[in-house]
Amino acid sequence: MSEASHSTDIAIIGAGPVGLFAVFEAGMLGLNTHVIDALDMVGGQCSALYPEKPIFDIPAHPQITGQDLIDQLAKQAAPFEPTYHLGQQVTKLEKRDDGRFTLETSVGTVIDAGAVVIAAGCGAFGPNKPPMDGLDDFEGSGGVQYYVKRRADFAGKKVVIAGGGDSAVDWALSLHDIAEKVYVVHRRPKFRAAPDSSAKLTALAEAGKIEMVIPYQLKGLKGDTASGKLSHVTVATLKGEELDLEADHLLPFFGLAMELGPIADWGLNLERNHIGVKQATMETSVSGIYAIGDIATYDHKLKLILSGFAEGASAIHSARSYLFPDKEFHFEYSTTTGVPAE
Amino acid sequence: MSEASHSTDIAIIGAGPVGLFAVFEAGMLGLNTHVIDALDMVGGQCSALYPEKPIFDIPAHPQITGQDLIDQLAKQAAPFEPTYHLGQQVTKLEKRDDGRFTLETSVGTVIDAGAVVIAAGCGAFGPNKPPMDGLDDFEGSGGVQYYVKRRADFAGKKVVIAGGGDSAVDWALSLHDIAEKVYVVHRRPKFRAAPDSSAKLTALAEAGKIEMVIPYQLKGLKGDTASGKLSHVTVATLKGEELDLEADHLLPFFGLAMELGPIADWGLNLERNHIGVKQATMETSVSGIYAIGDIATYDHKLKLILSGFAEGASAIHSARSYLFPDKEFHFEYSTTTGVPAE
Repeated sequence: MSEASHSTDIAIIGAGPVGLFAVFEAGMLGLNTHVIDALDMVGGQCSALYPEKPIFDIPAHPQITGQDLIDQLAKQAAPFEPTYHLGQQVTKLEKRDDGRFTLETSVGTVIDAGAVVIAAGCGAFGPNKPPMDGLDDFEGSGGVQYYVKRRADFAGKKVVIAGGGDSAVDWALSLHDIAEKVYVVHRRPKFRAAPDSSAKLTALAEAGKIEMVIPYQLKGLKGDTASGKLSHVTVATLKGEELDLEADHLLPFFGLAMELGPIADWGLNLERNHIGVKQATMETSVSGIYAIGDIATYDHKLKLILSGFAEGASAIHSARSYLFPDKEFHFEYSTTTGVPAE
Repeated sequence: MSEASHSTDIAIIGAGPVGLFAVFEAGMLGLNTHVIDALDMVGGQCSALYPEKPIFDIPAHPQITGQDLIDQLAKQAAPFEPTYHLGQQVTKLEKRDDGRFTLETSVGTVIDAGAVVIAAGCGAFGPNKPPMDGLDDFEGSGGVQYYVKRRADFAGKKVVIAGGGDSAVDWALSLHDIAEKVYVVHRRPKFRAAPDSSAKLTALAEAGKIEMVIPYQLKGLKGDTASGKLSHVTVATLKGEELDLEADHLLPFFGLAMELGPIADWGLNLERNHIGVKQATMETSVSGIYAIGDIATYDHKLKLILSGFAEGASAIHSARSYLFPDKEFHFEYSTTTGVPAE
């Protein structure tokens, strides 16, 4: 059954941005890595869900798209020659008596690893769909989309965006100057988005560039179900007042449903679908297993990609100490501070 | 005496990379900032000491020079219109009874701030000089340099690099293909540098591209003291065996001496010239004052710029809670995860 058997210093579960940066950090410390991801490409959500979405909070990248971010991280990791096992899920993770780990994947790959770093993001993920009928009549045609894969598809189109979080706000900001019309449907005036982005949305709404449909919720869809061509999105207030918005596309952004999948069975300390870690070392409740990025949680955790990068550096340093407990390390170097502590 | 009086949400002490990113983070949360730095430009050590040094561990930048890093961070911060007070040191920091802070600088600027983030790097810094005579005869001419400001100055030159840390190793790697000759003088075979960089150095030495002078220490300088033209660097073993290395330049990299300066008098909990903080919030022993980057310390601290970025995000979120204790914040958004938790 075993497709192949491998041995490595560190197995990294998840090839999203945080997993890729952990590959680089491991390489800098002279440790080799094998990386496993359920998707058949590296990049995680950035590549699969938001390849063209501009991201503004990666340090020293005033603006970068999801795919460009991944391309840069993969390029940075490449010199260390990680081995990628893509299109497969880690189904089994066991700690052996010698302190090392055995991983098995859904296609039978077996990996012997000295330490394990879980960078699995949201685990298996899918969109939360709004509670309304007929969605599937318009999904295949692109009339209803839960992720924007190609911004250009919305050129000259009438677009209804629903939701009150960052995705809704960011896509409204991004699409308003390419689409013919952008509606933002939200059940209340307050948005749970970065304050600066919310302020930009308000300004565009006041300038008449985006039409806010508040306080409304999604109610129904009208169009040609045979061809999947959407014509209107019906929205309603809590009192039942209805509006029909002319629309070529509906983009509902109600977050992602997250499923840990097999990770839930590995004996780790779980807190509400996340893996609890000590912030100082990113170690889970099992020594030698670390969790970083969105899947990891601790007091005052921020779910930011940039925080995941720093968590990756911490986890890899901790993993090195786990792998080589007798060695003394020089923890404080930086390639940049110029304080080499000779 | 007061040159000007200002009021702001957050005063950031230090305009190095970590301070600049904190400006951006504050801006994203709708908070304005005033930034004070002793140098007369932004960028801290990156701009002042290593503008052309390639940095390899900034996430999603496979390689970037110190100055390019600063330029990108300044550009990212610019839309939030921070006010910079450059060429002045914060000499006084006092917490008032209303919980806000008064800062005074060496040129009399007075700032009223709701919270304070200290991103002062190594504080006031200067190079550790090797214990040998005659250094000052060759410093003015560039014969002896403690920082490389222009890599091009070493084209076709014979260069002696001394030291065993990242700076020594990285500059040996960088200069060997432009200089006529590169010696690396170190007192022992082991280097305290990133393992990958050390491995590259060893490979270049084995290939005859760099000459390792081990175990030797700096002993003296020969040359024309009138013109400052260096001709030889004398090195010696502990047993007194001497060698004269032909040299146009000596680059001693023995780290930086760090002085906290006035920061030491602000009543903060200090640990060996660093400011102790709680890692979860980056708060110092005084509520409302945060420390981030190289100057901050906690258990398992890594002195990496990328860690400083994440610390900045934490500190700014904490500062916002300090400024608006009654508001509930949505701590878990990210512009990128697509989990807006509507």
